Amino acid sequence: MAVTDLAGLYRAYIDCLNRQDWADLERFVSDDASHNGRKFGLSGYRAMLENDFRQIPDLRFTIELLVVEAPHVASRLAFDCTPIGEFLGLPVHGKNIRFAENVIYRFHNARITEAWSVIDKAAIEAQL
Amino acid sequence: MAVTDLAGLYRAYIDCLNRQDWADLERFVSDDASHNGRKFGLSGYRAMLENDFRQIPDLRFTIELLVVEAPHVASRLAFDCTPIGEFLGLPVHGKNIRFAENVIYRFHNARITEAWSVIDKAAIEAQL
Repeated sequence: MAVTDLAGLYRAYIDCLNRQDWADLERFVSDDASHNGRKFGLSGYRAMLENDFRQIPDLRFTIELLVVEAPHVASRLAFDCTPIGEFLGLPVHGKNIRFAENVIYRFHNARITEAWSVIDKAAIEAQL
Repeated sequence: MAVTDLAGLYRAYIDCLNRQDWADLERFVSDDASHNGRKFGLSGYRAMLENDFRQIPDLRFTIELLVVEAPHVASRLAFDCTPIGEFLGLPVHGKNIRFAENVIYRFHNARITEAWSVIDKAAIEAQL
């Protein structure tokens, strides 16, 4: 898959998340997907995302940086949102926060099969 | 600069850090480099790294994933090390810890001009 295709596919994946179009998620995430080494599968991956939106109703994924070298995509995602309760164990409770997530994905057969994500928890702590 | 060159240049940069060869750092880091939006310059970037090695005498950078699309390099770095005191505000105090850093760099004229780094602080907390 060419670099431009993988970039376009990734942008479509992020759009799917922002639409919370969970029926469409299987177009982008493999049945055996893992996240930070946990073998979530598609159903566990979807459950994680659904839980994120329950915790953060105004969650929106914005791509700030995109680096593509097949089969990998690296992305810096920017968030400006309002977790309603605790988030990452921090007492956010309805405060608006901004933070980044740096994440690297491995694609296989045009689907995410591994994701390695780090959220900038220190940045959130500094805002509380 | 071709992708292979940028990957090789990045590996040489990581080797420079592991040798703590600070005189050589200017080959890899721009005079006006910034780190997480802070305009460190080469001297500030070097001071940050020297401080890291003071806090963590057995610090070693290991590339786990590398994604190159000029002018960007994304990397997942793995650490297995022993901070002597506090680290990221956490009371590590000589405990051996393992964690990752996901970082995206922008190169300009074959030098790092911006770095956007997130360290997996939650993973460290889980080990304390």
